Amino acid sequence: MVGGSVPVFDEIILSTALMNQVISFDDVSGTLVCQAGCVLEELSRHVEERDFIMPLDLGAKGSCHIGGNVATNAGGLRFLRYGSLHGTVLGLEVVLADGTVLNCLTSLRKDNTGYDLKQLFIGSEGTLGVITAVSILCPPKPKAVNVAFLGCPNFAGVLRTFRTCRGALGEILSAFEFMDAACMQLVERHLHLARPVQESPFYVLIETSGSHAGHDAEKLGSFLEHALGSGLVTDGTLATDQRRIKMLWALRERITEALSLDGYVYKYDLSLPVERLYDIVTSLRAHLGPRAKHVVGYGHLGDGNLHLNVTAEAFSTSLLAALEPHVYEWTAGQRGSISAEHGVGFKKRDVLGYSKPPEALQLMCQLKALLDPKGILNPYKMLPTQA
Amino acid sequence: MVGGSVPVFDEIILSTALMNQVISFDDVSGTLVCQAGCVLEELSRHVEERDFIMPLDLGAKGSCHIGGNVATNAGGLRFLRYGSLHGTVLGLEVVLADGTVLNCLTSLRKDNTGYDLKQLFIGSEGTLGVITAVSILCPPKPKAVNVAFLGCPNFAGVLRTFRTCRGALGEILSAFEFMDAACMQLVERHLHLARPVQESPFYVLIETSGSHAGHDAEKLGSFLEHALGSGLVTDGTLATDQRRIKMLWALRERITEALSLDGYVYKYDLSLPVERLYDIVTSLRAHLGPRAKHVVGYGHLGDGNLHLNVTAEAFSTSLLAALEPHVYEWTAGQRGSISAEHGVGFKKRDVLGYSKPPEALQLMCQLKALLDPKGILNPYKMLPTQA
Repeated sequence: MVGGSVPVFDEIILSTALMNQVISFDDVSGTLVCQAGCVLEELSRHVEERDFIMPLDLGAKGSCHIGGNVATNAGGLRFLRYGSLHGTVLGLEVVLADGTVLNCLTSLRKDNTGYDLKQLFIGSEGTLGVITAVSILCPPKPKAVNVAFLGCPNFAGVLRTFRTCRGALGEILSAFEFMDAACMQLVERHLHLARPVQESPFYVLIETSGSHAGHDAEKLGSFLEHALGSGLVTDGTLATDQRRIKMLWALRERITEALSLDGYVYKYDLSLPVERLYDIVTSLRAHLGPRAKHVVGYGHLGDGNLHLNVTAEAFSTSLLAALEPHVYEWTAGQRGSISAEHGVGFKKRDVLGYSKPPEALQLMCQLKALLDPKGILNPYKMLPTQA
Repeated sequence: MVGGSVPVFDEIILSTALMNQVISFDDVSGTLVCQAGCVLEELSRHVEERDFIMPLDLGAKGSCHIGGNVATNAGGLRFLRYGSLHGTVLGLEVVLADGTVLNCLTSLRKDNTGYDLKQLFIGSEGTLGVITAVSILCPPKPKAVNVAFLGCPNFAGVLRTFRTCRGALGEILSAFEFMDAACMQLVERHLHLARPVQESPFYVLIETSGSHAGHDAEKLGSFLEHALGSGLVTDGTLATDQRRIKMLWALRERITEALSLDGYVYKYDLSLPVERLYDIVTSLRAHLGPRAKHVVGYGHLGDGNLHLNVTAEAFSTSLLAALEPHVYEWTAGQRGSISAEHGVGFKKRDVLGYSKPPEALQLMCQLKALLDPKGILNPYKMLPTQA
């Protein structure tokens, strides 16, 4: 997304693909210890066989490595329920720039012996050290998973649905995703997926994960009854079996793929106050007019994370100039983040200042100089060209 | 506990008690932004009036400041459910050693714009900067809270009760605390609290917090029926009303107070693999013999966190020599932590090496030198005398 792992000039690529062994799994605490090159989906399978799940899940699960997930502080679809990797990663083994092996690979849930050094490397995009092993806390596998797919008449309705559903579903709510009508049209057109509810300006995907199928169904049922009865949502469908759950998730997970089939894609990944989340989409449509093919908004509403995408027949510098810094300035005006979960990499290193004050950028550069004085770890990435 | 905030030589005490204002609370996202001197209990009251709760709760809530909670990475009674402050703290404002105000006081749930600098200060015990404001994510207030207090015939039974109850209660489990018979005797003798179940070698306190009173009671009821029926626990009592819940919690929360009335107390706060959690208590009783008045174990079993306490008529260097480094060596042998949640402070700075390798201690000293080159922030604390 941001070119964090793409060699641009004279970089050497370091692959951890052969470091793909599970070191241990403790089925009382749910702690998994593994090498950095393990593929997320294979780890998921490993722990699911033991009645646990990974605390993160991404569209890219079939190819991404856990070391990369940690290095980029990946968010994804389970963030709403299980939180950030800063909370679920228990320990790391990291090779520093001078070759020192820093062994903080503890599997304890609580450890206040000194500074929590592993935190430095979570989300550092490989610029401070190379993560070689990970210890991570896995939640118990839910006994029941349900998915509801709903149509909402407007964005205010999406927000009210979120509030209502958080109250009604409480601790079993595990995802609250939204997409606009433009996303659905692209998914229908380019991937030939069928829309499961009647046409609406907005769609919401709600997932519950709980320990008692009967209780969960009752909670979800009474929420849906209320939501439909009060006009909060105009149509809805429910899935409880694995096949249909996958089908509904595909509508949300495959938006990226549909966009790539629509032309050149300008991608933005913003954190914004949830009430203002969709305003930028509407305003950008007006701002760009016919210069854009499609301006679409979707994402992890429950986390205040919008994926804003603009498609066009081909890349053009004039369209880029209409988008940037406009999108960044708008986001800064809301005190939002110009990179919620995608990171900084090569492409966004010089726009960090829209979300971070100069004092923070300076401290980042000082940390880089301390840990990698020769600048050999993922050079040209993440840190501003001048700071 | 560790003298982290006690002036020993020539330190100047800096109080944030007057910085006690709530800056904002967002009742959609549950984000609280406040000054560092706010008292935890007052913040709890503030957010509970708005149907949220603080993600942490401690015995010291009536006097401790949120800034201190964050600076010491406080654990406490809600850790099992809501996790570490590294996950729930969203932003910090910190004054650095040179007077720079580092404003990372974002209230966004997701923000991957550069290194997550706030993490450096969580658990740094004031040695890297002075926290002046905190942004923290508050979970929705549970609609139903239940507490069960059980007697177990042995520690293996406590562990099996934990496994069973995690399966049966799933996402509504919010605390799993244990105490041994010696703790109960001290609480009865010194505080005149009544034991609520028949005498047992071990006691367990289980709390559930959920969004549906009927469902929660059904889950807890069927768990208790199974636990009593299978002999996993020998006796149990249940509380659903606020007054009785408080009474049961007091048995666990007031152990510290009871210990202090028993004589001089040697305190250890260990993270250990949960299966070995109680072995150190048994082994220490044999090791110390009549030199100790009482050797007791209790704590946050669900987090693998044991509070090991030894009482004697008065402090004696010979008893201390029998305890240390024995307890630390035993813990290191299990790859445990010699400070799970209490921190390092003045008393444990020279025993960090039992839980951290030399490379980690060196990096900690480098970070201290970078952020506080003159060593003016909480001097003589946390970092080893020689490293």
